[in-house]
Amino acid sequence: MNEIPYKIYLTEEEMPNAWYNVRSAMKNKPAPLLNPGTHEPMKAEELAPVFCEELIKQELDNDTAFIPIPQEILDFYKMYRPSPLVRAYCLEKALDTPAHIYYKFEGNNTSGSHKLNSAIAQAYYAKMQGLKGVTTETGAGQWGTALSMACSYFGLDCKVYMVKVSYEQKPFRREVMRVYGADVTPSPSMTTKIGQKILAEHPGTTGSLGCAISEAVEVATSTPGYRYVLGSVLNQVLLHQSIIGLETEAALKKYDIVPDIIIGCAGGGSNLGGLISPFMRDKIEGKLDTRIIAVEPASCPSFTRGVYAYDFCDTGMVCPLAKMYTLGSDFIPSANHAGGLRYHGMSSILSQLYDDGLMEAVAVEQTSVFEAAEKFARVEGILPAPESSHAIKVAIDEAMKCKETGEAKNIVFGLTGTGYFDLVAYEKFHNGEMTDYIPTDDELAVFRAKLPVIG
Amino acid sequence: MNEIPYKIYLTEEEMPNAWYNVRSAMKNKPAPLLNPGTHEPMKAEELAPVFCEELIKQELDNDTAFIPIPQEILDFYKMYRPSPLVRAYCLEKALDTPAHIYYKFEGNNTSGSHKLNSAIAQAYYAKMQGLKGVTTETGAGQWGTALSMACSYFGLDCKVYMVKVSYEQKPFRREVMRVYGADVTPSPSMTTKIGQKILAEHPGTTGSLGCAISEAVEVATSTPGYRYVLGSVLNQVLLHQSIIGLETEAALKKYDIVPDIIIGCAGGGSNLGGLISPFMRDKIEGKLDTRIIAVEPASCPSFTRGVYAYDFCDTGMVCPLAKMYTLGSDFIPSANHAGGLRYHGMSSILSQLYDDGLMEAVAVEQTSVFEAAEKFARVEGILPAPESSHAIKVAIDEAMKCKETGEAKNIVFGLTGTGYFDLVAYEKFHNGEMTDYIPTDDELAVFRAKLPVIG
Repeated sequence: MNEIPYKIYLTEEEMPNAWYNVRSAMKNKPAPLLNPGTHEPMKAEELAPVFCEELIKQELDNDTAFIPIPQEILDFYKMYRPSPLVRAYCLEKALDTPAHIYYKFEGNNTSGSHKLNSAIAQAYYAKMQGLKGVTTETGAGQWGTALSMACSYFGLDCKVYMVKVSYEQKPFRREVMRVYGADVTPSPSMTTKIGQKILAEHPGTTGSLGCAISEAVEVATSTPGYRYVLGSVLNQVLLHQSIIGLETEAALKKYDIVPDIIIGCAGGGSNLGGLISPFMRDKIEGKLDTRIIAVEPASCPSFTRGVYAYDFCDTGMVCPLAKMYTLGSDFIPSANHAGGLRYHGMSSILSQLYDDGLMEAVAVEQTSVFEAAEKFARVEGILPAPESSHAIKVAIDEAMKCKETGEAKNIVFGLTGTGYFDLVAYEKFHNGEMTDYIPTDDELAVFRAKLPVIG
Repeated sequence: MNEIPYKIYLTEEEMPNAWYNVRSAMKNKPAPLLNPGTHEPMKAEELAPVFCEELIKQELDNDTAFIPIPQEILDFYKMYRPSPLVRAYCLEKALDTPAHIYYKFEGNNTSGSHKLNSAIAQAYYAKMQGLKGVTTETGAGQWGTALSMACSYFGLDCKVYMVKVSYEQKPFRREVMRVYGADVTPSPSMTTKIGQKILAEHPGTTGSLGCAISEAVEVATSTPGYRYVLGSVLNQVLLHQSIIGLETEAALKKYDIVPDIIIGCAGGGSNLGGLISPFMRDKIEGKLDTRIIAVEPASCPSFTRGVYAYDFCDTGMVCPLAKMYTLGSDFIPSANHAGGLRYHGMSSILSQLYDDGLMEAVAVEQTSVFEAAEKFARVEGILPAPESSHAIKVAIDEAMKCKETGEAKNIVFGLTGTGYFDLVAYEKFHNGEMTDYIPTDDELAVFRAKLPVIG
């Protein structure tokens, strides 16, 4: 018998009832959002036409450590949480490594990922404010699906602008959103001014996340009773996602496990930021010396090859400016299958932590990610999302280093979701048709030169 | 605070370590399989060319109550089990019913259904026998996926004959099987004599489950080191699936909940048979007067409109004869989306229990099933498989009766899986294009007339 079970579950009583705000522990706070016109820090009243009031408070609050989770959200969390912290006994055996590998699995809900943790919070606050509905964009579809589920639960309208290429290539994702009553529009569309402009200039475009954001924001700000919500990057989203880290912390403590390495994939940063929140606090306070590793695709290397600067969050430049590790808002990565990791920038919180040397980052190439994904699937049973598989790849690499050194390190990684809607990618991998494009230094320099000049 | 949590999980220590054989409690034992040539009961040695030895013992054992689960299978179960018994608080609220609704959710594994419970057991016994591989058929794909995962875990070859129409319409299911290294062939195929014969007679056929079974059996019996395995109908499969019922029983007992009604969808009967096993024992012994309801599609009504008779299990008539509620082995139901419920017959165990008046059965129409599925998805978060949604439909109907009478009955149903690979069906439902064909009495009589005449 193993002392540590295959899956560590918390009881309802052990589940966190407050989110943890990692900004409260940061010595260098994340840089504020700036007004794109004046370059002054955005005030709450300037954000109010776009975002829900309570969410703006959370966005701007760098000080409060614990923010209570409203009962209605706790009740919803209980439907699909706690997520298990899984001891990867089978993977350890297959790798023949002395390392102890754990993963926090967020895929056991119909949205298929961790995105639901923030979607339900944002939908709740929109409902409490008496709004009629919300707008958003979605790329790969996880966020749109999660928000559709959350809005359906609270009886809110949900308008999703889905990047056209995904809308066409992922009809099943679209259909799940329809199950939950969402209104899904391929972007760019003729329903917005910015969409009309982009279509006039680029009639054949298949869209981009930056463009879909611009459309969703335009609709939110021009439709009475609507606001815009975002599934990653923002401070508020990392706050909600801290539920992942808090549950992980509680599960590890039940068995006196101290993590040596924590690994997460990083697109906009919501999963990694949430997973590491309480551990980062302990690291800042000198109580823990855990290595924290962000994993990004080599095709979209914001951390490892970007610059730390103010940049636009969207193509239409209607959103506030954010200081972040960025490749430039015009940068379009190659057709990578990890749609959730194709954002040009990165959470301001994670950017500051990375700049402060509190975390590491590594970029990995797509085919090696799918090799790791398939190895994992065959022994651990779960078919992982391409995004999540970036973390698997590095977790396996670290476990193999332990095999060389003989160290029994505790490796914890975030398994953000399942790959049931990504089988076209797996098919390409099986057929040997998977490619990856790593941008050259010269190419990155072109986009870097277009960054806005601040102050 | 609710005293009963949203999800009741067992600890590893509370998990069952033996399967329960409901036949041991049955006063009238299920009828034996017959040799299709001699019409004599099949002996172990006659079954040995087709099935694994240990599984034959389990198939023929009507007496042993508890059969220990080997440690290797228990270890695998720990990766994805225990499955939660969920209290459907949100559904109860949406229905405004005094009933207490519980569902045992078997969808939280990559095969997406309960099928993995038996797949891992069958793969294990094949491995223990020193076999090289196994063959099987799959319709909708859940069983094929589950078996692929199980074979990958034990390093066995896995040859899946997939009904051609599903192979073409469900490329993603096929791709998941490839992730797990299975060899998937559309059936009928030119790789078998029976396939060649069928293709010669019906060049344009899109296949059927009965035909795929015949091909898989032919390959198993003609390839050294191979045996055939089946995902439903057989006694051994119901035995393995008793893990569902045993966990449900343990979870209910933790909170002193006595089920008034237990509901499950019934295709071949493996999920329902497993779910009810320990409760049926108590019912037979007079300790429990729970109503047990099998739900089947109106398009394939084996229980409600079939006859209890010996029949062929497959189109090619190569398998033993089984006594069961059947529509006739030539009966092909209309293109129902619940592929897992389109079998012409029914488990011999369940057939006997039904004939003994120990269970009820109800047939429901497809569109009403999808209405229930969508209602459930919107409040409980989980997108259910069309098969599972048959149970949801009847659970909701029973809960609404409680609303009329004011009774707080405990309703337990089996939620066998997720619908992530069934979104074409949901799309048809949304677009108002869903149809259902209920066979006429005259049509059923044609197939009934072709039943084999025994003794």
